[in-house]
Amino acid sequence: MEKLDGYSGALKRLLEENNVRAGDVVKVVTGEREYVGTIIPRYEYASQDFLTLKLLNGYNIGISLDKILSITLIEKHSPPSFKSTPPEFKSKNLPKAVIVSTGGTIASRVDYRTGGVRPALSAFDLLSVVPELAEIAKVDAEVLFSMYSENMTQSNWTILAKKLHDYVSKGYEGVVVTHGTDTMGYTAAALSFALKNTPVPIVLVGSQRSSDRPSSDASSNLISAMRTSIEAPFSGVYVLMHGWVSDERMEVHLGTKVRKMHTSRRDAFKSINIKPAAIYENGRIHVILDNLPKRKVPSSFEIFPNFDDRVALIKFYPNMDPEIFLYLLDRGYRGIVLEGFGLGHVSSRAISVLKKIIRDGVFVFMTSQCIFGRVRLTVYDTGRDLLEVGVIPLEDMLSETAFVKLSWCLGNFEEDRVLDIMKANIAYEFSSRTFLEEGERFGD
Amino acid sequence: MEKLDGYSGALKRLLEENNVRAGDVVKVVTGEREYVGTIIPRYEYASQDFLTLKLLNGYNIGISLDKILSITLIEKHSPPSFKSTPPEFKSKNLPKAVIVSTGGTIASRVDYRTGGVRPALSAFDLLSVVPELAEIAKVDAEVLFSMYSENMTQSNWTILAKKLHDYVSKGYEGVVVTHGTDTMGYTAAALSFALKNTPVPIVLVGSQRSSDRPSSDASSNLISAMRTSIEAPFSGVYVLMHGWVSDERMEVHLGTKVRKMHTSRRDAFKSINIKPAAIYENGRIHVILDNLPKRKVPSSFEIFPNFDDRVALIKFYPNMDPEIFLYLLDRGYRGIVLEGFGLGHVSSRAISVLKKIIRDGVFVFMTSQCIFGRVRLTVYDTGRDLLEVGVIPLEDMLSETAFVKLSWCLGNFEEDRVLDIMKANIAYEFSSRTFLEEGERFGD
Repeated sequence: MEKLDGYSGALKRLLEENNVRAGDVVKVVTGEREYVGTIIPRYEYASQDFLTLKLLNGYNIGISLDKILSITLIEKHSPPSFKSTPPEFKSKNLPKAVIVSTGGTIASRVDYRTGGVRPALSAFDLLSVVPELAEIAKVDAEVLFSMYSENMTQSNWTILAKKLHDYVSKGYEGVVVTHGTDTMGYTAAALSFALKNTPVPIVLVGSQRSSDRPSSDASSNLISAMRTSIEAPFSGVYVLMHGWVSDERMEVHLGTKVRKMHTSRRDAFKSINIKPAAIYENGRIHVILDNLPKRKVPSSFEIFPNFDDRVALIKFYPNMDPEIFLYLLDRGYRGIVLEGFGLGHVSSRAISVLKKIIRDGVFVFMTSQCIFGRVRLTVYDTGRDLLEVGVIPLEDMLSETAFVKLSWCLGNFEEDRVLDIMKANIAYEFSSRTFLEEGERFGD
Repeated sequence: MEKLDGYSGALKRLLEENNVRAGDVVKVVTGEREYVGTIIPRYEYASQDFLTLKLLNGYNIGISLDKILSITLIEKHSPPSFKSTPPEFKSKNLPKAVIVSTGGTIASRVDYRTGGVRPALSAFDLLSVVPELAEIAKVDAEVLFSMYSENMTQSNWTILAKKLHDYVSKGYEGVVVTHGTDTMGYTAAALSFALKNTPVPIVLVGSQRSSDRPSSDASSNLISAMRTSIEAPFSGVYVLMHGWVSDERMEVHLGTKVRKMHTSRRDAFKSINIKPAAIYENGRIHVILDNLPKRKVPSSFEIFPNFDDRVALIKFYPNMDPEIFLYLLDRGYRGIVLEGFGLGHVSSRAISVLKKIIRDGVFVFMTSQCIFGRVRLTVYDTGRDLLEVGVIPLEDMLSETAFVKLSWCLGNFEEDRVLDIMKANIAYEFSSRTFLEEGERFGD
């Protein structure tokens, strides 16, 4: 039986009779009340005989077929239209910049077929959605990937690092990477390690609302990211996102010190154990951190683009069976980053197993599931025991950054150099002191 | 060869000649400068021929034997002395209260033998360290465990729940549990589920500095916890810790919504996705959350004290090999709580494996590694796919609380009831709406 947007039978006929389908805005009258909203296709697992409507407040409701008295078309669905770049800017003497698109919400639109959001906009589309970019730079665009960021792997990091190395080496002065927010922190850390002595700031940017929604943060994020990449006096790899729920204040985070701390808010990204590198506000960049590397001409710009995927990130939980470490050893894992409790603790029964896998050549590092603060293994007996069997504490490094760094170390260097490189401060992953003074808040 | 506090050879002889040993405060003069600090025993893995000194600023340094010109005793080590409870309070007409001690920093002192901190104070000692408690209540004390909290298991939760049920049933009006901070959040969640219709507030409390240190938060935390347990108008299970770095303001957190968010600060514990239940400040309790259960006489107080340990908490990371789920299935795990990316996503390649283990009877639930915000699986394709294979999203529940709740569900109820109970709001683990309004900060 043929379906209409997932609807069949009597409900399909009702839609056809009223000449409406998914994506259209309609008024539905029932015996109890009226609803105005967009028709959403029926999901495979949704109940039969329910019409799904996305209301103006963003919520979806299901309306039972037998309660529907009438359906009236209010507005036919039409795809969003984009302005094209004004031609008068194309000839101006502007810096050369590039947007490398990897996918994610910033490069997506609401899909009225499924009612969800999917990567659909290309980097070219982004340029036409945000014509202001043409006033800032001569912007090239490349769609490198079109994927949800939860599917990014080590090999995507390698391809992306090489691509960015190419653009920067060719003299591009502004380099912006659009990325899904889910794993943008991990990718930012990967690029921070893979690209050495980057002469310009490479800015990763995403959005929390798709760019064809009125509430989207895509446009303001993208413009701010481009201006930061072109104008900032520092270099390196950064994430730029809203620093607050409004449009006025963007935060520029070090790629190794940033974490998605909220599932949905615009200001979801936070610098951890350090202040943001800079604030972008009202068209101006305010540098906050001292000692950032300066913007410079490309000279010693190098690339170490490889990552080993035989690395695990393991969060400890009460009474966790340490046999999992033997499983990882058997499966050929070369390194493990632990998220311990508090200062970096695990249960005593895990220690002998960790001793065994470390003797067998697995690198084991300790971070904290507290997220904020510094791992210290010298305060309690458990910590001393961990040090003794060869677990290496990673100070105030984020566990996610530690996972990426270990994958990068094992991908590019001989094993006898791994410990030294893991302990060295390569890309600001360690803060030399706790930036969180007693009098300061943390977590925002 | 006999050692002195881990020191041997020439260094041992030097210490003996000067009649000093570990725990003593000394002045050490070298050719370059003078140091004043406490002698720390030599750790097994420390370099030979270095004297370890804990300086007054708290840092440890190693001084090479060949640089030492002289060692002078400044103060002999003596164990801390405690005041005893004033007898005049013992006969007063005060409410009956109990401190149940499980170990942790609050019940510990600096061990000058190892230079570290170890559980050493009993609940009785705590009473003598904090004589003010005797003015609040007739306080009994029981040392139930003396362990680091990273070693707490499901069976410890069961024993503790039964013990607390006993005390409350006997009419104790104040019930305080001292606990190591590392897993205090997990234990608080466990007690929140295990104890139903608790008539009084059971308050878990820890400290971030051992109680024999001048900077300790043990005393202020303990007094505030006891007063809250005796005086608060609400009931249930709570964690009380500093809400700020100073002593003036304590926060009382719901046992299911609290997380250790900093490795070392006094205000390490934060309520997540909800405000603190109450503030304790200047001797007064300010209730913040509406709808908390009221303090009442014990009537329908019940206990569901069992926990199944065949439950895993798995944090997703980029390119994670989903074979780990098959390993957990093979090992007899009955439930898994995932910490997905963002709104609750994992890589596409994991979905078919999750489908298989769910078909084979493993319960799989989704939370977010963002910590703040709400899981939503209906926005993106990945989420819809997860819903379709049977992964259950847990809204704004903390992953740690979800792990504990699943362990508790499987420990007390038949499998056909597990899904319903996991989705029901048993002990405030779900917030009915996002408490974080757009205009509010999160993370502090």
